[in-house]
Amino acid sequence: MAGNTFGILFRVTTYGESHGNGVGVVIDGVKPNIKISEEEIQKELNHRRPGQSKLVSSRQESDKVEIVSGVFRGKTLGTPVCLMVRNADTRPEDYDNLRNVFRPGHADFTYYMKYGIYDYRGGGRASGRETVGRVAAGAIAKKILLENKIRIFAYTKSIGDITAKSIDYRQIEKNPMRCPDNRAAREMEKILRRVKSGGDSIGGIVEAVVKNCPPGFGEPVFDKLEADLAKALMSIPAVHGFEIGSGFSAAKMLGSEHNDELFREKRNKKIHMKTNNAGGILGGISTGDDIVLRIAVKPTSSIHMRQITVDRAGKKREIVIDGRHDPCICPRVVPVAEAMIALVLVDHMMRFQSIKKVR
Amino acid sequence: MAGNTFGILFRVTTYGESHGNGVGVVIDGVKPNIKISEEEIQKELNHRRPGQSKLVSSRQESDKVEIVSGVFRGKTLGTPVCLMVRNADTRPEDYDNLRNVFRPGHADFTYYMKYGIYDYRGGGRASGRETVGRVAAGAIAKKILLENKIRIFAYTKSIGDITAKSIDYRQIEKNPMRCPDNRAAREMEKILRRVKSGGDSIGGIVEAVVKNCPPGFGEPVFDKLEADLAKALMSIPAVHGFEIGSGFSAAKMLGSEHNDELFREKRNKKIHMKTNNAGGILGGISTGDDIVLRIAVKPTSSIHMRQITVDRAGKKREIVIDGRHDPCICPRVVPVAEAMIALVLVDHMMRFQSIKKVR
Amino acid sequence: MAGNTFGILFRVTTYGESHGNGVGVVIDGVKPNIKISEEEIQKELNHRRPGQSKLVSSRQESDKVEIVSGVFRGKTLGTPVCLMVRNADTRPEDYDNLRNVFRPGHADFTYYMKYGIYDYRGGGRASGRETVGRVAAGAIAKKILLENKIRIFAYTKSIGDITAKSIDYRQIEKNPMRCPDNRAAREMEKILRRVKSGGDSIGGIVEAVVKNCPPGFGEPVFDKLEADLAKALMSIPAVHGFEIGSGFSAAKMLGSEHNDELFREKRNKKIHMKTNNAGGILGGISTGDDIVLRIAVKPTSSIHMRQITVDRAGKKREIVIDGRHDPCICPRVVPVAEAMIALVLVDHMMRFQSIKKVR
Amino acid sequence: MAGNTFGILFRVTTYGESHGNGVGVVIDGVKPNIKISEEEIQKELNHRRPGQSKLVSSRQESDKVEIVSGVFRGKTLGTPVCLMVRNADTRPEDYDNLRNVFRPGHADFTYYMKYGIYDYRGGGRASGRETVGRVAAGAIAKKILLENKIRIFAYTKSIGDITAKSIDYRQIEKNPMRCPDNRAAREMEKILRRVKSGGDSIGGIVEAVVKNCPPGFGEPVFDKLEADLAKALMSIPAVHGFEIGSGFSAAKMLGSEHNDELFREKRNKKIHMKTNNAGGILGGISTGDDIVLRIAVKPTSSIHMRQITVDRAGKKREIVIDGRHDPCICPRVVPVAEAMIALVLVDHMMRFQSIKKVR
Repeated sequence: MAGNTFGILFRVTTYGESHGNGVGVVIDGVKPNIKISEEEIQKELNHRRPGQSKLVSSRQESDKVEIVSGVFRGKTLGTPVCLMVRNADTRPEDYDNLRNVFRPGHADFTYYMKYGIYDYRGGGRASGRETVGRVAAGAIAKKILLENKIRIFAYTKSIGDITAKSIDYRQIEKNPMRCPDNRAAREMEKILRRVKSGGDSIGGIVEAVVKNCPPGFGEPVFDKLEADLAKALMSIPAVHGFEIGSGFSAAKMLGSEHNDELFREKRNKKIHMKTNNAGGILGGISTGDDIVLRIAVKPTSSIHMRQITVDRAGKKREIVIDGRHDPCICPRVVPVAEAMIALVLVDHMMRFQSIKKVR
Repeated sequence: MAGNTFGILFRVTTYGESHGNGVGVVIDGVKPNIKISEEEIQKELNHRRPGQSKLVSSRQESDKVEIVSGVFRGKTLGTPVCLMVRNADTRPEDYDNLRNVFRPGHADFTYYMKYGIYDYRGGGRASGRETVGRVAAGAIAKKILLENKIRIFAYTKSIGDITAKSIDYRQIEKNPMRCPDNRAAREMEKILRRVKSGGDSIGGIVEAVVKNCPPGFGEPVFDKLEADLAKALMSIPAVHGFEIGSGFSAAKMLGSEHNDELFREKRNKKIHMKTNNAGGILGGISTGDDIVLRIAVKPTSSIHMRQITVDRAGKKREIVIDGRHDPCICPRVVPVAEAMIALVLVDHMMRFQSIKKVR
Repeated sequence: MAGNTFGILFRVTTYGESHGNGVGVVIDGVKPNIKISEEEIQKELNHRRPGQSKLVSSRQESDKVEIVSGVFRGKTLGTPVCLMVRNADTRPEDYDNLRNVFRPGHADFTYYMKYGIYDYRGGGRASGRETVGRVAAGAIAKKILLENKIRIFAYTKSIGDITAKSIDYRQIEKNPMRCPDNRAAREMEKILRRVKSGGDSIGGIVEAVVKNCPPGFGEPVFDKLEADLAKALMSIPAVHGFEIGSGFSAAKMLGSEHNDELFREKRNKKIHMKTNNAGGILGGISTGDDIVLRIAVKPTSSIHMRQITVDRAGKKREIVIDGRHDPCICPRVVPVAEAMIALVLVDHMMRFQSIKKVR
Repeated sequence: MAGNTFGILFRVTTYGESHGNGVGVVIDGVKPNIKISEEEIQKELNHRRPGQSKLVSSRQESDKVEIVSGVFRGKTLGTPVCLMVRNADTRPEDYDNLRNVFRPGHADFTYYMKYGIYDYRGGGRASGRETVGRVAAGAIAKKILLENKIRIFAYTKSIGDITAKSIDYRQIEKNPMRCPDNRAAREMEKILRRVKSGGDSIGGIVEAVVKNCPPGFGEPVFDKLEADLAKALMSIPAVHGFEIGSGFSAAKMLGSEHNDELFREKRNKKIHMKTNNAGGILGGISTGDDIVLRIAVKPTSSIHMRQITVDRAGKKREIVIDGRHDPCICPRVVPVAEAMIALVLVDHMMRFQSIKKVR
């Protein structure tokens, strides 16, 4: 029990089901005197929201965020920041025919086995809608990181067989795929149209790069930076794999290829790596180079095709899932991945700071 | 700070540097009245120990474990179990020439940046030797799991381009590669001999399967079972990637391929999946099917080849690392992976049990 | 930072300032399938609410609770239960003249020193209003305890020099003092009237008894039951002391007087203590006897008398605090104390249960 | 389960039974580059050790501490510091006749009820000997505090009816009572001689003062400084009560007496309180004034007198406890209390520091 809190010093607790009264988050450990407005958080949430193109779910979530606590006259108080988004545009009747059926690929079955009860409407707590709280908290985390010049860029790296060939961060928000390569994005869109028309869905890879993270973040031997990032990202619905730097390709490499040569930059006398197979982390601690990671996203579980499954009584059932669903959720995972990375980094920044002198 | 504890209810804290007085672990949350002996733990440690073949490091660690506390007349007391292994056969002089140099691929640089000090002898805390404590704790965790019929099998799935084609658990301990396919194991050995003779090293993949885990383990939305497994395994030195079930291959799959069809077994009326792309976990909770995961292991960082790097002063240095090192650490990662998986499962088993009636 | 969460398995996070948008709590770890309604929680909150007699603060808090998440068709889901109470009837203008002044006995000064900012309206986060979330969470905790036949009775034991002479639980809710001795209650009321008419306030003692707690709750050596109870109760605003069983009187006792003689009850063969100086806890673990504890409550800090203090600039200021304040807060501390005790007990019940067999 | 760890960032885990192989502690979160030696820690342990006078237990614990890890060439590494003290001079035969009997006032009964097994030799884990690990950890915590000029003075305030009338810290170590008033100490010794000769024991009060703690420590609303101090001190064996500042006397005070007037010191422009009923903490946060607290210590449970109890089978038994026991443990609680206070303060110092800028 009690798995809905993340972080030690920057501690985030999310709440809410897809079709209940609302979803949100309490963030404990936000430092005082940061300027923050509902508009800023809303902007991040809009980023996450479906309904942004024909290729993503057309549910019109208004996702209007309210700052319930922790902010006074536009500034954080150092007390818990509670953010809430009311659920609207819920169409529970979409789910009525599924109330006793375990949808393949969904958590209906496991929630039922664990709790003996679940809110079948839209996945309840297991819905992607739960990530609203993560993204809202991430908005504040990003702001704190930005004060320290740390920036995170996540993007769709590949969908099916199509992979971005170039990485231009400015292109990410210029296409509905959130792909840093507009040309590849157009290919991805073609694939998605085809997949969607067949009622099917498809998987992909999201990559993220953290710029300007100083050396020293990460707490060996269990709370290593890559370990906490892995946990953070693997906790996002539909994520099936995580890798840092060279990742799974390291399994085929020689040590002489993989080891990153260290050198001192003339400019600022800082030590860096010539290559970055480490992905910006060595021994669980950030090196000061870019942190580079990737996650594998499985194809959307809700597909508009005939599927065989069982109901609560164990009886065989044939179902077709209606409702509005993205053929590929990578574009929507992007802001959630950024948020989760931001939560990890702020928490580790604070842990690192804790050994500085108090006076 | 304070990243050396893992788990909530079965809580493991490791301590010790490679060339200090000793390494070990305190395990808090071991249930009382379990029979446990130094011999049993020793057996697991021997499993981890190097020097088992010419292809793994020839350091003769005696690794004699002592139960310092928590066990009375052969049974656990429910109090913290402290296990300690004295360091012996240390040859710190091997490291004298490296005391100011940051070895590529190692944590020397990041430890120095974070702490301003590090024990350069054998990697200190960042050494693989730190995993002694994990394996010792894992021995107890496995015993508790076995009471509940839960078993873990980890093995070397691939090294470089060679991959096990068949999975026969009985073969794992029959070859020094810990590969479940003896034929592939012989190919792997050939590769390793070649790599070693060139002073180089190579990466690989370790796979693990958990048999007989009941449905219900895992605590959404952050302490999902796959998230905690990812953290546990990514915290092992040299691990660069983690995947569950279909893993990164999900990125190229269609939903209609990926969704696992549910059915009820005639025999015991239990619900299972026909395929297991989920890897035994849906929505962060175990399904009752096999849990299947893989980790990518980077090539050993210590290679007997000329490498360029810098020293503490930032001065360019050319080094060749002496000492005894494995050309591929997959066979040694295998017992550590099993231990970490066991720690996660016991902890989650206890969390799941916590909602049962007390009387 | 991040001090707003309490508990390990039954984990409570409160949020909200006195005069912000709302106050509330997220409870993570509520077991599934418990019936719970807004009415039940409301009932506990009404218990806490001021304005119940002329002798307690006359602020008309409507305190209408909303279950935002975690409950589906009247039953808990096992997911986080978010409860919220909107702030109404706020009269921030009462505090305008105090915005730069540190009120004696209040947390204005320390919040300012720690955070550099605080919501001066009604004490902000340091207000007694923060306990709304505690009491709301306690309502659920009590319900879970009651399933296990565990009941908690807290009451005003003394105010100033007046002490309850008899303990009749049925009288507690029959007088505004929440005193188990109606006769003493009338004396207390007299004192309060006198104190209030002088613009002053007075302290008191709240006692609590837990009936039917089974042996075995409490986790030595740090999370001893009395230690966690002490923390829980000392975290309530205005509490200055905690004692268990014999408490401070133990300091004058002999071992031969203090040691409780053990005996076996004929009736049920259970072992109990003849006396209960232990207060129901030995070595950090519940004995199965009544748990008995007491807390010292300081006089209300807000008094309607001339006081000398300083403002933010350090300048000497003379102030008189207006507004509605209880002359003694013991009656209002009673439900908060019960709630905090309930949180501790449920959490420890779950920790104790975690070592039971899963199947 | 898992109650043997204390602290969030300065995290202490103790282990060991009274008559097992050893007792000790792992401290995670010790900042790097602190000079620390076995001699320094030994000095604190000697302070705790019994056998220091005829009035305290004459067991000759050698208590020789070993630094097992975390220190390299006399300096901390930032990695876990494991400290171990071997058990010697154990006379388990003293306890043979008690192996099935629940000693009144001891934890035998509750450990048996909770765990179904316990090490009956000398109290096992419930022995005061467990505090060796606390005091050893406290030695390091105190050193870190001292760098920040924070000092802790604990002392025996009263034994039975005798109370120190003056507080002169220099006298504390000049008498075996650890009383800051040598004259009162002599009275206390007289009492103890009389009590001991009758085979009995007696309780007392230990007081502690923290000098020079800056404002800002403490994390509302649950991890308030007084709440964490209460937990820390109530977790010490035999402690039955805790109070801060005015403590239980607040229950009889008027608000106009109790509120501490704030003023600005001319000398350094710092704001302080004229009186200190708050005990150095307001709203859970340190004020910058002395932190003043007291704990009630029950009479030693082991008395050399005939007592009635039951054995494991529930059968009535008459026992007389042999062995070496202090007639009053206050003098031995003093260093443990200092250690626990130090652990709380370092942890909170680090939490406070965590919001400082990283660069």
